[in-house]
Amino acid sequence: MSSLTVNTKLLRKILVGFIREEVTKVGLCRAVLGLSGGIDSALVVYLAAEALGPENVHACIMPYRTSNPESEAHARLAAGELGINFEVIEITEMVDAYFELFPDADNMRRGNKMARERMTILYDHSAAHSALVLGTSNKTELLLGYGTLFGDMASALNPIGDIYKSQVWQLSEEMGVPRVIIDKKPSADLWAGQTDEQELGFSYREVDELLFRMVDLRCNREELIAAGFAPEFIDLIYGKVQSSHFKRRLPVIAKVSNRTIDRDFRYSRDWGK
Amino acid sequence: MSSLTVNTKLLRKILVGFIREEVTKVGLCRAVLGLSGGIDSALVVYLAAEALGPENVHACIMPYRTSNPESEAHARLAAGELGINFEVIEITEMVDAYFELFPDADNMRRGNKMARERMTILYDHSAAHSALVLGTSNKTELLLGYGTLFGDMASALNPIGDIYKSQVWQLSEEMGVPRVIIDKKPSADLWAGQTDEQELGFSYREVDELLFRMVDLRCNREELIAAGFAPEFIDLIYGKVQSSHFKRRLPVIAKVSNRTIDRDFRYSRDWGK
Repeated sequence: MSSLTVNTKLLRKILVGFIREEVTKVGLCRAVLGLSGGIDSALVVYLAAEALGPENVHACIMPYRTSNPESEAHARLAAGELGINFEVIEITEMVDAYFELFPDADNMRRGNKMARERMTILYDHSAAHSALVLGTSNKTELLLGYGTLFGDMASALNPIGDIYKSQVWQLSEEMGVPRVIIDKKPSADLWAGQTDEQELGFSYREVDELLFRMVDLRCNREELIAAGFAPEFIDLIYGKVQSSHFKRRLPVIAKVSNRTIDRDFRYSRDWGK
Repeated sequence: MSSLTVNTKLLRKILVGFIREEVTKVGLCRAVLGLSGGIDSALVVYLAAEALGPENVHACIMPYRTSNPESEAHARLAAGELGINFEVIEITEMVDAYFELFPDADNMRRGNKMARERMTILYDHSAAHSALVLGTSNKTELLLGYGTLFGDMASALNPIGDIYKSQVWQLSEEMGVPRVIIDKKPSADLWAGQTDEQELGFSYREVDELLFRMVDLRCNREELIAAGFAPEFIDLIYGKVQSSHFKRRLPVIAKVSNRTIDRDFRYSRDWGK
Protein backbone atom coordinates (compact mmCIF):
# COMPACT_ATOMS: atom_id res chain seq x y z
CA MET A 1 0.00 0.00 0.00
CA SER A 2 1.52 3.33 -0.99
CA SER A 3 -1.28 5.45 0.48
CA LEU A 4 -3.99 5.15 3.10
CA THR A 5 -6.50 4.23 0.44
CA VAL A 6 -6.96 0.47 0.45
CA ASN A 7 -8.34 -2.13 -1.89
CA THR A 8 -11.23 -3.03 0.36
CA LYS A 9 -12.26 -6.18 -1.50
CA LEU A 10 -8.78 -7.63 -1.24
CA LEU A 11 -8.39 -6.55 2.38
CA ARG A 12 -11.71 -8.19 3.24
CA LYS A 13 -10.55 -11.45 1.70
CA ILE A 14 -7.21 -11.37 3.52
CA LEU A 15 -8.66 -10.59 6.94
CA VAL A 16 -11.50 -13.09 6.68
CA GLY A 17 -8.94 -15.71 5.65
CA PHE A 18 -6.69 -14.73 8.56
CA ILE A 19 -9.43 -15.25 11.15
CA ARG A 20 -10.53 -18.55 9.65
CA GLU A 21 -7.00 -19.91 9.42
CA GLU A 22 -5.81 -18.81 12.85
CA VAL A 23 -8.91 -20.14 14.61
CA THR A 24 -9.03 -23.47 12.83
CA LYS A 25 -5.31 -24.18 12.98
CA VAL A 26 -5.47 -24.45 16.77
CA GLY A 27 -8.34 -26.90 16.42
CA LEU A 28 -11.14 -24.48 17.30
CA CYS A 29 -14.06 -23.06 15.35
CA ARG A 30 -15.32 -20.20 17.50
CA ALA A 31 -14.40 -16.64 18.42
CA VAL A 32 -15.49 -14.30 21.19
CA LEU A 33 -15.19 -10.53 21.27
CA GLY A 34 -16.41 -7.46 23.06
CA LEU A 35 -18.85 -5.24 21.19
CA SER A 36 -18.64 -1.65 22.37
CA GLY A 37 -21.00 -0.15 19.82
CA GLY A 38 -18.05 1.53 18.12
CA ILE A 39 -16.74 0.99 14.62
CA ASP A 40 -13.63 -1.07 15.40
CA SER A 41 -15.38 -3.90 17.19
CA ALA A 42 -18.26 -3.70 14.69
CA LEU A 43 -15.83 -4.19 11.82
CA VAL A 44 -14.20 -7.15 13.54
CA VAL A 45 -17.51 -8.86 14.24
CA TYR A 46 -18.53 -8.50 10.59
CA LEU A 47 -15.22 -10.04 9.53
CA ALA A 48 -15.56 -12.83 12.11
CA ALA A 49 -19.12 -13.71 11.12
CA GLU A 50 -18.01 -14.02 7.50
CA ALA A 51 -14.97 -16.09 8.46
CA LEU A 52 -16.54 -18.51 10.93
CA GLY A 53 -20.27 -18.24 10.34
CA PRO A 54 -22.50 -16.20 12.65
CA GLU A 55 -23.29 -19.26 14.78
CA ASN A 56 -19.63 -19.48 15.77
CA VAL A 57 -19.23 -15.90 16.92
CA HIS A 58 -20.09 -14.91 20.48
CA ALA A 59 -20.20 -11.25 21.49
CA CYS A 60 -20.19 -9.75 24.96
CA ILE A 61 -21.70 -6.30 25.39
CA MET A 62 -20.30 -4.93 28.67
CA PRO A 63 -21.73 -1.58 29.69
CA TYR A 64 -20.85 0.33 32.83
CA ARG A 65 -23.49 2.45 34.57
CA THR A 66 -22.12 5.64 32.99
CA SER A 67 -21.90 4.21 29.47
CA ASN A 68 -23.95 5.95 26.81
CA PRO A 69 -27.10 3.82 26.20
CA GLU A 70 -26.59 4.50 22.49
CA SER A 71 -23.42 2.39 22.65
CA GLU A 72 -25.32 -0.68 23.78
CA ALA A 73 -28.02 -0.01 21.18
CA HIS A 74 -25.41 0.11 18.41
CA ALA A 75 -23.74 -3.06 19.65
CA ARG A 76 -27.13 -4.82 19.66
CA LEU A 77 -27.80 -3.49 16.18
CA ALA A 78 -24.59 -4.98 14.77
CA ALA A 79 -25.11 -8.31 16.53
CA GLY A 80 -28.74 -8.43 15.42
CA GLU A 81 -27.95 -7.71 11.77
CA LEU A 82 -25.44 -10.55 11.71
CA GLY A 83 -27.52 -12.98 13.74
CA ILE A 84 -24.65 -13.85 16.08
CA ASN A 85 -25.02 -14.88 19.73
CA PHE A 86 -24.57 -12.12 22.22
CA GLU A 87 -25.11 -11.39 25.88
CA VAL A 88 -25.11 -8.20 27.91
CA ILE A 89 -22.96 -8.30 31.05
CA GLU A 90 -22.94 -5.18 33.17
CA ILE A 91 -19.58 -4.52 34.75
CA THR A 92 -20.83 -1.91 37.22
CA GLU A 93 -20.93 -4.11 40.29
CA MET A 94 -17.43 -5.55 39.80
CA VAL A 95 -15.84 -2.19 39.07
CA ASP A 96 -17.66 -0.28 41.81
CA ALA A 97 -16.79 -2.92 44.42
CA TYR A 98 -13.15 -2.04 43.78
CA PHE A 99 -13.45 1.74 43.66
CA GLU A 100 -15.41 1.82 46.91
CA LEU A 101 -11.97 1.11 48.37
CA PHE A 102 -10.34 3.89 46.32
CA PRO A 103 -13.01 6.59 45.94
CA ASP A 104 -10.48 9.26 44.90
CA ALA A 105 -9.41 7.44 41.74
CA ASP A 106 -9.55 9.66 38.64
CA ASN A 107 -11.30 8.96 35.33
CA MET A 108 -8.16 7.54 33.77
CA ARG A 109 -7.76 4.89 36.47
CA ARG A 110 -11.48 4.08 36.32
CA GLY A 111 -11.42 3.77 32.54
CA ASN A 112 -8.43 1.44 32.61
CA LYS A 113 -9.99 -0.74 35.31
CA MET A 114 -13.15 -1.06 33.19
CA ALA A 115 -11.16 -1.99 30.09
CA ARG A 116 -9.31 -4.67 32.08
CA GLU A 117 -12.53 -5.98 33.67
CA ARG A 118 -13.90 -6.46 30.15
CA MET A 119 -10.77 -8.38 29.17
CA THR A 120 -11.17 -10.74 32.13
CA ILE A 121 -14.77 -11.41 31.07
CA LEU A 122 -13.81 -12.09 27.46
CA TYR A 123 -11.11 -14.51 28.57
CA ASP A 124 -13.56 -16.26 30.86
CA HIS A 125 -15.92 -16.61 27.92
CA SER A 126 -13.03 -17.81 25.80
CA ALA A 127 -12.61 -20.71 28.24
CA ALA A 128 -16.34 -21.33 28.59
CA HIS A 129 -16.99 -21.44 24.83
CA SER A 130 -13.63 -22.80 23.56
CA ALA A 131 -13.37 -19.64 21.51
CA LEU A 132 -10.41 -17.39 20.68
CA VAL A 133 -10.57 -13.77 21.83
CA LEU A 134 -10.50 -11.34 18.92
CA GLY A 135 -8.75 -8.02 19.44
CA THR A 136 -10.23 -4.82 18.07
CA SER A 137 -7.37 -2.30 18.38
CA ASN A 138 -6.47 -0.61 15.11
CA LYS A 139 -2.96 0.43 14.04
CA THR A 140 -3.51 4.10 14.90
CA GLU A 141 -4.44 3.29 18.49
CA LEU A 142 -1.68 0.74 18.85
CA LEU A 143 0.99 3.14 17.58
CA LEU A 144 -0.24 6.01 19.75
CA GLY A 145 -0.59 3.73 22.78
CA TYR A 146 -4.21 4.89 22.94
CA GLY A 147 -5.57 1.83 24.68
CA THR A 148 -5.30 -0.11 27.92
CA LEU A 149 -2.43 -2.55 28.29
CA PHE A 150 -3.82 -5.98 29.30
CA GLY A 151 -7.27 -4.47 28.72
CA ASP A 152 -8.61 -3.79 25.24
CA MET A 153 -5.08 -4.33 23.89
CA ALA A 154 -5.13 -7.98 25.01
CA SER A 155 -6.36 -10.67 22.64
CA ALA A 156 -5.41 -13.90 20.94
CA LEU A 157 -5.85 -12.58 17.39
CA ASN A 158 -6.17 -9.06 16.14
CA PRO A 159 -7.50 -8.84 12.57
CA ILE A 160 -7.29 -5.03 12.38
CA GLY A 161 -4.02 -4.24 14.20
CA ASP A 162 -2.25 -3.45 10.94
CA ILE A 163 -4.87 -1.10 9.50
CA TYR A 164 -5.24 2.57 10.37
CA LYS A 165 -8.47 4.15 11.57
CA SER A 166 -8.93 5.77 8.14
CA GLN A 167 -8.76 2.30 6.64
CA VAL A 168 -11.17 0.92 9.25
CA TRP A 169 -13.72 3.40 7.89
CA GLN A 170 -13.15 2.27 4.31
CA LEU A 171 -13.37 -1.43 5.10
CA SER A 172 -16.45 -0.93 7.26
CA GLU A 173 -18.28 0.49 4.24
CA GLU A 174 -17.30 -2.55 2.22
CA MET A 175 -18.46 -4.96 4.97
CA GLY A 176 -21.83 -3.27 5.38
CA VAL A 177 -21.36 -2.11 8.97
CA PRO A 178 -24.49 -0.09 9.87
CA ARG A 179 -24.30 3.52 8.69
CA VAL A 180 -25.02 4.96 12.14
CA ILE A 181 -21.94 3.21 13.56
CA ILE A 182 -19.69 4.36 10.71
CA ASP A 183 -20.85 7.95 10.92
CA LYS A 184 -20.69 8.63 14.66
CA LYS A 185 -17.73 10.25 16.39
CA PRO A 186 -15.22 7.71 17.75
CA SER A 187 -15.36 7.46 21.55
CA ALA A 188 -14.01 5.08 24.16
CA ASP A 189 -17.22 5.92 26.10
CA LEU A 190 -15.33 5.90 29.39
CA TRP A 191 -17.08 9.00 30.61
CA ALA A 192 -19.98 11.14 29.38
CA GLY A 193 -19.36 13.10 26.23
CA GLN A 194 -15.84 11.74 25.69
CA THR A 195 -14.67 11.69 22.09
CA ASP A 196 -11.30 10.29 21.01
CA GLU A 197 -10.38 13.21 18.81
CA GLN A 198 -11.15 15.79 21.49
CA GLU A 199 -9.14 13.86 24.03
CA LEU A 200 -6.22 13.32 21.66
CA GLY A 201 -6.27 16.89 20.38
CA PHE A 202 -6.10 16.00 16.69
CA SER A 203 -8.19 14.10 14.15
CA TYR A 204 -7.65 10.50 13.10
CA ARG A 205 -7.37 11.56 9.46
CA GLU A 206 -4.54 13.99 10.28
CA VAL A 207 -2.62 11.62 12.48
CA ASP A 208 -3.06 8.69 10.10
CA GLU A 209 -1.46 10.69 7.29
CA LEU A 210 1.48 11.42 9.54
CA LEU A 211 1.84 7.94 11.02
CA PHE A 212 1.61 6.31 7.62
CA ARG A 213 4.53 8.42 6.39
CA MET A 214 6.52 8.04 9.62
CA VAL A 215 6.08 4.32 10.07
CA ASP A 216 5.17 2.71 6.77
CA LEU A 217 7.06 5.00 4.40
CA ARG A 218 9.94 5.61 6.86
CA CYS A 219 10.03 9.35 6.19
CA ASN A 220 12.37 11.32 8.44
CA ARG A 221 11.60 14.61 10.18
CA GLU A 222 12.85 16.80 7.33
CA GLU A 223 10.78 14.90 4.79
CA LEU A 224 7.70 15.20 6.99
CA ILE A 225 8.18 18.95 7.37
CA ALA A 226 8.65 19.24 3.60
CA ALA A 227 5.38 17.33 3.18
CA GLY A 228 3.65 20.05 5.18
CA PHE A 229 3.39 18.65 8.72
CA ALA A 230 3.99 21.08 11.58
CA PRO A 231 7.20 20.30 13.52
CA GLU A 232 5.33 20.40 16.85
CA PHE A 233 2.80 17.87 15.58
CA ILE A 234 5.56 15.59 14.32
CA ASP A 235 7.36 15.74 17.67
CA LEU A 236 4.16 15.19 19.62
CA ILE A 237 3.28 12.06 17.67
CA TYR A 238 6.83 10.77 17.60
CA GLY A 239 6.87 11.17 21.39
CA LYS A 240 3.61 9.25 21.77
CA VAL A 241 4.85 6.35 19.68
CA GLN A 242 8.16 6.21 21.56
CA SER A 243 6.67 6.46 25.04
CA SER A 244 4.11 3.75 24.34
CA HIS A 245 6.58 1.15 23.05
CA PHE A 246 6.23 -0.71 26.34
CA LYS A 247 2.57 -1.41 25.56
CA ARG A 248 3.56 -3.26 22.40
CA ARG A 249 6.08 -5.53 24.06
CA LEU A 250 5.99 -8.55 26.31
CA PRO A 251 7.08 -8.20 29.95
CA VAL A 252 10.85 -7.65 30.06
CA ILE A 253 12.58 -10.68 31.56
CA ALA A 254 16.01 -10.37 33.19
CA LYS A 255 18.29 -12.47 30.98
CA VAL A 256 20.58 -14.81 32.93
CA SER A 257 20.69 -17.96 30.79
CA ASN A 258 21.59 -18.98 27.25
CA ARG A 259 17.98 -19.37 26.25
CA THR A 260 15.59 -16.77 27.58
CA ILE A 261 11.86 -16.67 26.83
CA ASP A 262 11.03 -14.03 24.18
CA ARG A 263 14.75 -13.58 23.43
CA ASP A 264 16.44 -16.80 22.26
CA PHE A 265 13.39 -18.97 22.78
CA ARG A 266 10.43 -17.55 20.92
CA TYR A 267 8.42 -19.75 18.58
CA SER A 268 7.52 -23.36 18.01
CA ARG A 269 9.51 -23.43 14.81
CA ASP A 270 12.58 -22.51 16.85
CA TRP A 271 12.27 -25.69 18.80
CA GLY A 272 11.81 -29.36 18.07
CA LYS A 273 12.40 -32.74 19.53
CA MET B 1 25.20 -22.03 33.63
CA SER B 2 25.86 -25.66 32.78
CA SER B 3 23.64 -27.08 35.52
CA LEU B 4 20.70 -25.97 37.64
CA THR B 5 23.08 -25.03 40.44
CA VAL B 6 23.61 -21.28 40.35
CA ASN B 7 26.12 -18.84 41.76
CA THR B 8 23.61 -17.18 44.04
CA LYS B 9 25.79 -14.18 44.95
CA LEU B 10 26.32 -13.30 41.29
CA LEU B 11 22.66 -13.93 40.42
CA ARG B 12 21.58 -11.66 43.28
CA LYS B 13 23.81 -8.88 41.97
CA ILE B 14 22.53 -9.24 38.40
CA LEU B 15 18.84 -9.30 39.31
CA VAL B 16 19.06 -6.42 41.79
CA GLY B 17 20.90 -4.42 39.11
CA PHE B 18 18.26 -5.35 36.54
CA ILE B 19 15.40 -4.04 38.67
CA ARG B 20 17.24 -0.84 39.54
CA GLU B 21 18.22 -0.12 35.96
CA GLU B 22 14.88 -0.93 34.35
CA VAL B 23 12.90 1.13 36.85
CA THR B 24 15.18 4.17 36.84
CA LYS B 25 15.71 4.27 33.08
CA VAL B 26 12.04 5.09 32.53
CA GLY B 27 12.33 7.91 35.05
CA LEU B 28 10.65 6.11 37.94
CA CYS B 29 11.87 4.95 41.34
CA ARG B 30 9.12 2.65 42.58
CA ALA B 31 7.77 -0.84 42.02
CA VAL B 32 4.52 -2.56 42.92
CA LEU B 33 3.86 -6.28 43.13
CA GLY B 34 1.42 -8.82 44.43
CA LEU B 35 2.51 -10.87 47.44
CA SER B 36 0.80 -14.25 47.52
CA GLY B 37 2.66 -15.66 50.46
CA GLY B 38 4.50 -18.04 48.14
CA ILE B 39 8.20 -18.21 47.42
CA ASP B 40 8.26 -16.60 43.96
CA SER B 41 6.72 -13.29 44.95
CA ALA B 42 8.67 -13.36 48.23
CA LEU B 43 11.94 -13.68 46.32
CA VAL B 44 10.99 -10.83 44.00
CA VAL B 45 10.07 -8.52 46.87
CA TYR B 46 13.41 -9.21 48.56
CA LEU B 47 15.22 -8.39 45.32
CA ALA B 48 13.12 -5.25 44.79
CA ALA B 49 13.67 -3.94 48.31
CA GLU B 50 17.42 -4.33 47.84
CA ALA B 51 17.30 -2.68 44.42
CA LEU B 52 15.05 0.29 45.18
CA GLY B 53 15.00 0.59 48.95
CA PRO B 54 12.06 -0.74 51.00
CA GLU B 55 10.37 2.68 50.96
CA ASN B 56 10.01 2.41 47.17
CA VAL B 57 8.35 -0.98 47.09
CA HIS B 58 4.59 -1.31 47.44
CA ALA B 59 3.00 -4.72 47.88
CA CYS B 60 -0.64 -5.72 47.44
CA ILE B 61 -1.86 -8.78 49.32
CA MET B 62 -5.05 -9.87 47.57
CA PRO B 63 -6.82 -12.78 49.23
CA TYR B 64 -10.08 -14.35 48.10
CA ARG B 65 -12.52 -15.74 50.65
CA THR B 66 -11.30 -19.30 50.04
CA SER B 67 -7.60 -18.43 50.26
CA ASN B 68 -5.61 -20.16 52.96
CA PRO B 69 -5.15 -17.65 55.85
CA GLU B 70 -1.57 -18.93 56.10
CA SER B 71 -0.89 -17.37 52.68
CA GLU B 72 -1.77 -13.89 53.91
CA ALA B 73 0.24 -14.47 57.10
CA HIS B 74 3.31 -15.40 55.07
CA ALA B 75 2.89 -12.40 52.79
CA ARG B 76 2.65 -10.12 55.83
CA LEU B 77 5.71 -11.80 57.30
CA ALA B 78 7.83 -11.07 54.21
CA ALA B 79 6.59 -7.47 53.94
CA GLY B 80 7.12 -6.91 57.64
CA GLU B 81 10.68 -8.26 57.63
CA LEU B 82 11.60 -5.90 54.81
CA GLY B 83 9.71 -2.89 56.14
CA ILE B 84 8.01 -2.21 52.80
CA ASN B 85 4.57 -0.63 52.36
CA PHE B 86 1.75 -3.06 51.87
CA GLU B 87 -2.01 -3.18 51.85
CA VAL B 88 -4.52 -6.00 51.93
CA ILE B 89 -7.23 -5.82 49.26
CA GLU B 90 -9.81 -8.59 49.30
CA ILE B 91 -10.94 -9.57 45.83
CA THR B 92 -13.97 -11.56 46.98
CA GLU B 93 -16.61 -8.96 46.22
CA MET B 94 -15.36 -8.20 42.70
CA VAL B 95 -14.97 -11.84 41.74
CA ASP B 96 -18.22 -13.02 43.31
CA ALA B 97 -20.20 -10.23 41.62
CA TYR B 98 -19.15 -11.77 38.31
CA PHE B 99 -19.71 -15.42 39.15
CA GLU B 100 -23.18 -14.73 40.49
CA LEU B 101 -23.96 -14.41 36.79
CA PHE B 102 -22.16 -17.68 35.95
CA PRO B 103 -22.67 -19.93 38.99
CA ASP B 104 -21.70 -23.09 37.09
CA ALA B 105 -18.16 -21.93 36.35
CA ASP B 106 -15.54 -24.49 37.36
CA ASN B 107 -12.45 -24.01 39.55
CA MET B 108 -10.21 -23.34 36.58
CA ARG B 109 -12.34 -20.45 35.35
CA ARG B 110 -12.63 -19.06 38.87
CA GLY B 111 -8.90 -19.29 39.45
CA ASN B 112 -8.12 -17.51 36.20
CA LYS B 113 -10.63 -14.75 36.93
CA MET B 114 -9.00 -14.20 40.32
CA ALA B 115 -5.52 -14.06 38.83
CA ARG B 116 -6.72 -11.47 36.30
CA GLU B 117 -8.56 -9.45 38.95
CA ARG B 118 -5.27 -9.24 40.85
CA MET B 119 -3.51 -8.01 37.71
CA THR B 120 -6.06 -5.24 37.24
CA ILE B 121 -5.47 -4.14 40.85
CA LEU B 122 -1.70 -4.14 40.46
CA TYR B 123 -1.96 -2.05 37.31
CA ASP B 124 -4.29 0.37 39.02
CA HIS B 125 -1.72 0.70 41.81
CA SER B 126 0.98 1.10 39.21
CA ALA B 127 -0.85 4.20 37.96
CA ALA B 128 -1.66 5.48 41.44
CA HIS B 129 1.91 5.16 42.74
CA SER B 130 3.89 5.75 39.51
CA ALA B 131 5.41 2.34 40.02
CA LEU B 132 6.30 -0.45 37.63
CA VAL B 133 4.57 -3.80 38.07
CA LEU B 134 7.02 -6.59 38.87
CA GLY B 135 6.22 -10.05 37.54
CA THR B 136 6.80 -13.13 39.64
CA SER B 137 6.53 -16.01 37.16
CA ASN B 138 9.57 -18.27 37.10
CA LYS B 139 11.00 -20.00 34.03
CA THR B 140 9.48 -23.38 34.92
CA GLU B 141 5.96 -21.93 35.08
CA LEU B 142 6.45 -19.85 31.96
CA LEU B 143 7.71 -22.81 29.92
CA LEU B 144 4.94 -25.12 31.14
CA GLY B 145 2.31 -22.40 30.62
CA TYR B 146 1.39 -22.93 34.28
CA GLY B 147 0.00 -19.46 34.86
CA THR B 148 -2.80 -17.17 33.76
CA LEU B 149 -2.32 -15.20 30.56
CA PHE B 150 -2.97 -11.50 31.25
CA GLY B 151 -3.17 -12.46 34.92
CA ASP B 152 -0.10 -13.40 36.95
CA MET B 153 1.84 -13.64 33.67
CA ALA B 154 1.34 -9.91 33.01
CA SER B 155 3.91 -7.42 34.27
CA ALA B 156 6.25 -4.65 33.20
CA LEU B 157 9.42 -6.37 34.43
CA ASN B 158 10.01 -9.93 35.45
CA PRO B 159 13.24 -10.43 37.42
CA ILE B 160 12.85 -14.20 37.78
CA GLY B 161 11.45 -15.24 34.38
CA ASP B 162 14.76 -16.77 33.35
CA ILE B 163 15.37 -18.84 36.48
CA TYR B 164 13.87 -22.23 37.20
CA LYS B 165 11.93 -23.08 40.35
CA SER B 166 14.94 -25.06 41.64
CA GLN B 167 17.00 -21.90 41.26
CA VAL B 168 14.30 -19.80 42.95
CA TRP B 169 14.82 -21.99 46.02
CA GLN B 170 18.60 -21.47 45.94
CA LEU B 171 18.40 -17.72 45.50
CA SER B 172 15.73 -17.39 48.19
CA GLU B 173 18.15 -18.90 50.71
CA GLU B 174 20.78 -16.37 49.70
CA MET B 175 18.33 -13.45 50.00
CA GLY B 176 17.12 -14.49 53.43
CA VAL B 177 13.51 -15.20 52.50
CA PRO B 178 11.80 -16.54 55.66
CA ARG B 179 12.39 -20.25 56.20
CA VAL B 180 8.69 -21.06 56.48
CA ILE B 181 8.08 -19.68 52.98
CA ILE B 182 11.00 -21.56 51.46
CA ASP B 183 10.03 -24.85 53.06
CA LYS B 184 6.31 -25.01 52.31
CA LYS B 185 4.78 -26.83 49.35
CA PRO B 186 4.28 -24.59 46.32
CA SER B 187 0.61 -23.79 45.74
CA ALA B 188 -1.33 -21.32 43.62
CA ASP B 189 -3.86 -21.34 46.52
CA LEU B 190 -6.77 -21.18 44.10
CA TRP B 191 -8.74 -23.74 46.02
CA ALA B 192 -8.35 -25.49 49.37
CA GLY B 193 -5.51 -27.97 49.58
CA GLN B 194 -4.21 -27.30 46.06
CA THR B 195 -0.52 -27.96 45.55
CA ASP B 196 1.29 -27.29 42.30
CA GLU B 197 3.11 -30.60 42.20
CA GLN B 198 -0.05 -32.62 42.83
CA GLU B 199 -1.91 -30.72 40.14
CA LEU B 200 0.95 -30.99 37.65
CA GLY B 201 1.60 -34.65 38.41
CA PHE B 202 5.38 -34.31 38.79
CA SER B 203 7.83 -32.47 41.01
CA TYR B 204 9.52 -29.18 40.16
CA ARG B 205 12.94 -30.78 40.70
CA GLU B 206 12.19 -33.50 38.13
CA VAL B 207 10.74 -31.20 35.52
CA ASP B 208 13.46 -28.60 35.98
CA GLU B 209 16.13 -31.20 35.21
CA LEU B 210 14.26 -32.09 32.04
CA LEU B 211 13.44 -28.52 30.94
CA PHE B 212 16.99 -27.37 31.56
CA ARG B 213 18.32 -30.08 29.22
CA MET B 214 15.53 -29.59 26.66
CA VAL B 215 15.63 -25.83 26.47
CA ASP B 216 18.97 -24.56 27.74
CA LEU B 217 21.20 -27.46 26.63
CA ARG B 218 19.14 -28.17 23.48
CA CYS B 219 19.21 -31.93 24.02
CA ASN B 220 17.05 -33.93 21.62
CA ARG B 221 14.69 -36.77 22.52
CA GLU B 222 17.30 -39.50 22.12
CA GLU B 223 19.77 -37.66 24.32
CA LEU B 224 17.10 -37.15 26.97
CA ILE B 225 16.20 -40.84 26.94
CA ALA B 226 19.89 -41.72 27.21
CA ALA B 227 20.10 -39.36 30.20
CA GLY B 228 17.45 -41.47 31.94
CA PHE B 229 14.19 -39.56 31.34
CA ALA B 230 11.10 -41.65 30.57
CA PRO B 231 9.85 -41.15 27.00
CA GLU B 232 6.28 -40.47 28.24
CA PHE B 233 7.55 -37.76 30.57
CA ILE B 234 9.58 -36.16 27.79
CA ASP B 235 6.57 -36.16 25.46
CA LEU B 236 4.26 -34.82 28.15
CA ILE B 237 6.53 -31.89 28.92
CA TYR B 238 7.35 -31.21 25.30
CA GLY B 239 3.61 -31.07 24.63
CA LYS B 240 3.04 -28.63 27.47
CA VAL B 241 5.74 -26.27 26.24
CA GLN B 242 4.44 -26.44 22.67
CA SER B 243 0.79 -25.95 23.51
CA SER B 244 1.50 -22.98 25.78
CA HIS B 245 3.57 -21.02 23.24
CA PHE B 246 0.61 -18.69 22.74
CA LYS B 247 0.91 -17.53 26.35
CA ARG B 248 4.45 -16.31 25.69
CA ARG B 249 3.60 -14.28 22.60
CA LEU B 250 1.89 -11.00 21.87
CA PRO B 251 -1.54 -11.02 20.21
CA VAL B 252 -1.16 -12.17 16.60
CA ILE B 253 -1.84 -9.29 14.23
CA ALA B 254 -2.95 -9.92 10.63
CA LYS B 255 -0.09 -8.55 8.52
CA VAL B 256 -1.25 -6.37 5.63
CA SER B 257 1.37 -3.60 5.45
CA ASN B 258 5.13 -3.27 5.08
CA ARG B 259 5.60 -2.44 8.72
CA THR B 260 3.51 -4.38 11.15
CA ILE B 261 3.63 -3.98 14.93
CA ASP B 262 5.67 -6.79 16.58
CA ARG B 263 6.89 -7.96 13.17
CA ASP B 264 8.83 -5.24 11.30
CA PHE B 265 8.19 -2.54 13.87
CA ARG B 266 9.32 -3.72 17.28
CA TYR B 267 11.67 -1.58 19.33
CA SER B 268 12.64 2.02 19.87
CA ARG B 269 16.09 1.37 18.48
CA ASP B 270 14.44 0.25 15.25
CA TRP B 271 13.01 3.69 14.76
CA GLY B 272 14.30 7.25 14.83
CA LYS B 273 13.53 10.66 13.52
